[in-house]
Amino acid sequence: RLDAMADPGAAFVARDATAPPVPPGRLHRRELHVREVVREVAPGVRQRLWTFDGTVPGPVLRGRVGDTFEITLVNDSTLDHGIDFHAGAVAPDEVMRPIDPGQRLTYRFTTTRAGIWMYHCSTMPMLHHIGNGMYGAVIVDPPDLPRVDREFVLVQSELYLGPDGEPGDLAAMQAERPDAVVFNGYPAQYAHRPLPARAGERVRVWLLDAGPNRDSSFHIVGAQFDTVYREGHWENRPTDPGGAQVLSLTPAGGGFVETVFPAAGHYPFVSHAMVDAERGARGLFEVR
Amino acid sequence: RLDAMADPGAAFVARDATAPPVPPGRLHRRELHVREVVREVAPGVRQRLWTFDGTVPGPVLRGRVGDTFEITLVNDSTLDHGIDFHAGAVAPDEVMRPIDPGQRLTYRFTTTRAGIWMYHCSTMPMLHHIGNGMYGAVIVDPPDLPRVDREFVLVQSELYLGPDGEPGDLAAMQAERPDAVVFNGYPAQYAHRPLPARAGERVRVWLLDAGPNRDSSFHIVGAQFDTVYREGHWENRPTDPGGAQVLSLTPAGGGFVETVFPAAGHYPFVSHAMVDAERGARGLFEVR
Amino acid sequence: RLDAMADPGAAFVARDATAPPVPPGRLHRRELHVREVVREVAPGVRQRLWTFDGTVPGPVLRGRVGDTFEITLVNDSTLDHGIDFHAGAVAPDEVMRPIDPGQRLTYRFTTTRAGIWMYHCSTMPMLHHIGNGMYGAVIVDPPDLPRVDREFVLVQSELYLGPDGEPGDLAAMQAERPDAVVFNGYPAQYAHRPLPARAGERVRVWLLDAGPNRDSSFHIVGAQFDTVYREGHWENRPTDPGGAQVLSLTPAGGGFVETVFPAAGHYPFVSHAMVDAERGARGLFEVR
Ligand SMILES: [Cu+2]
Ligand SMILES: [Cu+2]
Ligand SMILES: [Cu+2]
Ligand SMILES: [Cu+2]
Ligand SMILES: [Cu+2]
Ligand SMILES: [Cu+2]
Ligand code: NA
Ligand code: NA
Ligand code: NA
Ligand code: NA
Ligand code: NA
Ligand code: NA
Ligand SMILES: [Zn+2]
Ligand SMILES: [Zn+2]
Ligand SMILES: [Zn+2]
Ligand SMILES: [Zn+2]
Ligand SMILES: [Zn+2]
Ligand SMILES: [Zn+2]
Ligand SMILES: [Zn+2]
Ligand SMILES: [Zn+2]
Ligand SMILES: [Zn+2]
Repeated sequence: RLDAMADPGAAFVARDATAPPVPPGRLHRRELHVREVVREVAPGVRQRLWTFDGTVPGPVLRGRVGDTFEITLVNDSTLDHGIDFHAGAVAPDEVMRPIDPGQRLTYRFTTTRAGIWMYHCSTMPMLHHIGNGMYGAVIVDPPDLPRVDREFVLVQSELYLGPDGEPGDLAAMQAERPDAVVFNGYPAQYAHRPLPARAGERVRVWLLDAGPNRDSSFHIVGAQFDTVYREGHWENRPTDPGGAQVLSLTPAGGGFVETVFPAAGHYPFVSHAMVDAERGARGLFEVR
Repeated sequence: RLDAMADPGAAFVARDATAPPVPPGRLHRRELHVREVVREVAPGVRQRLWTFDGTVPGPVLRGRVGDTFEITLVNDSTLDHGIDFHAGAVAPDEVMRPIDPGQRLTYRFTTTRAGIWMYHCSTMPMLHHIGNGMYGAVIVDPPDLPRVDREFVLVQSELYLGPDGEPGDLAAMQAERPDAVVFNGYPAQYAHRPLPARAGERVRVWLLDAGPNRDSSFHIVGAQFDTVYREGHWENRPTDPGGAQVLSLTPAGGGFVETVFPAAGHYPFVSHAMVDAERGARGLFEVR
Repeated sequence: RLDAMADPGAAFVARDATAPPVPPGRLHRRELHVREVVREVAPGVRQRLWTFDGTVPGPVLRGRVGDTFEITLVNDSTLDHGIDFHAGAVAPDEVMRPIDPGQRLTYRFTTTRAGIWMYHCSTMPMLHHIGNGMYGAVIVDPPDLPRVDREFVLVQSELYLGPDGEPGDLAAMQAERPDAVVFNGYPAQYAHRPLPARAGERVRVWLLDAGPNRDSSFHIVGAQFDTVYREGHWENRPTDPGGAQVLSLTPAGGGFVETVFPAAGHYPFVSHAMVDAERGARGLFEVR
């Protein structure tokens, strides 16, 4: 039913994978509106998604260690939803509680640890809420994070289709039968709208495995990772003689890799669990 | 058939998750009796488990690097069983051999490496023997292991139900269709009987993924891990600016994480493979 | 249909698991011929495999950081095939393109990073080409790699059976229903033809998880890993007090472990995802 290779058509606009910069100031205040949207999740396939601010994944937030985030969740949907930010250490009782349609709730946290942290809906069954689109990433820069030439963010997740125009199928999630595995919400979108880079540039890719269920084994064809940062740990630096071909993540894990593309060309990226690459966990860097 | 959210009732007593202290002396001598027990493995569901000393997981053993364990396995059951301790390096031929009902066998090893090590029945098919309850953990403290305020041990495993009162279903294990994924042998037991802690305390959680088949992606909602020790390697220390949201383990892998709960409240923990959290791989810290 | 425990018979010759030495010189030039071979993949089960040079896995290549590999792929088969070497950073466009039967293509790369790197067919669907035998390993030694007494290479992969004498079943690969999980292409081959070692020797095992789909949780029964090198990162050294019981890999990940067998005996090895061990991901070290 879902063809992960199908062309999304000329009008398709891919999710911008560029990592946002760290915004100025130490207090990051914003609203996140929960919205139900009926959207094409693959060529010819529409689903009723539950979203943060209308996009899947939700917006990428970014800050430094020591910054404060003050996020107001506004429930503009017809169901209860809540939010859980892994980026902050807080007692869940108040800030993560589900809120009714029409309600709002302010969630405040100050970051103390670097990494790329998942956020997601906190309403039960979370399997259904994450599986139907309610997840995103907060990047907290390590203090010594070097500048690079380009920086992208990819969030891996799964699609479990419900009837056309309806929410994803909870039974398929429970049976672990994904219809697609995707980066930034849409199968193979960056195969059709490649990510740009230039030869010789240092490129960083932040990766979060939002699951809800599957690992990621992220690989860039033709490239090697001389730098790997996983769950707050530097596993590889350019000065180490070793390199990595995959970044291995379990659900809710994250990190980044860096590479320098050696020459112009087209460099596919995948989750190297090949069944997932075939299901849409693939894209392309177009390097000039 | 198995409801991972069902209340186990007022009489339910959760497995004590407190990590045992390192006992005095350098020789740790004990018997482990193999016993078949018919036990409730989830509310209203009974199975004939194969156990070490009557509990699933078996007892948690602990020592230092250089300590000697002298364990006598006594087979009080009706089937052949054996034991394999990952905590010691020994030729398997004699000590891991299956023994007949009524037999006993002494297994001696001196630890040389720190970590949390699996033990399990060594009788074929091991998938069935581990899947029906025969696993446990040996903690060997790293020499420089700091004192913490509280220390817990969680062993993740899967339940594959056989007929009521009978052993687990080997065919379901082979088909990878678990009925539940659990910490310390019972679905969501610590959601009903929360683990206690206090705000500001440093808490260490040892984790072993006994499988037999599934990964663990251990996460504590509302908390961050400033310390991660996985398979003998310090991946994160409090002085590193990075933090972790998950401890990622494949079957038979283990380690520990540390966190300081920032305030009083209820902090759920899960395997963040959400389908497993829904299957019972969940619990709660109650922080005062 | 496939019995992972069946005896392959007296005439069976196991794949040599000895790691090849680093060849002299800094330029390693060779041909790799794509060949279709009908071969026994398990006792009594024959498949039409797609291979590099007639073997599954393909040959293990080895070099140092800074060496150049000049590999000429010769397509002696009836289908299009190509090759992708993770060991080199190169623009994929030319060197990884599929070539017609009868064509040849030279692929040149100079290594810049140490590790054990996968190579595999680059033709779509890669799930089918990898799943039907087209994968292998390139070892690039870290500059400071100590000498050891014995060195082996194991490549884990899955078998998805097609009809007898025909290629593997793509639908089974897509459904993630492996018939076997194997080291070096054949279920439990080293249980029948054990790998030799001597007590007190330091043994290194290089491991690559070729997938296409499953993790590896590599463990040696009776032994402990005092050294773990994973994806270019030293996770454990003999001087660290910690040790490891498993090497955890996601598909296309690789590394090595080292151990010293404490005494003569028979030491099984497995992927400790027990369902995979039962499917054939098992073998034996015979230590004298
Ligand atoms: Cu929600
Ligand atoms: Cu590849
Ligand atoms: Cu047993
Ligand atoms: Cu979460
Ligand atoms: Cu091919
Ligand atoms: Cu074991
Ligand atoms: Na994509
Ligand atoms: Na490096
Ligand atoms: Na529990
Ligand atoms: Na830290
Ligand atoms: Na084998
Ligand atoms: Na060590
Ligand atoms: Zn609104
Ligand atoms: Zn182009
Ligand atoms: Zn007794
Ligand atoms: Zn309470
Ligand atoms: Zn030829
Ligand atoms: Zn052609
Ligand atoms: Zn995994
Ligand atoms: Zn490390
Ligand atoms: Zn022998």
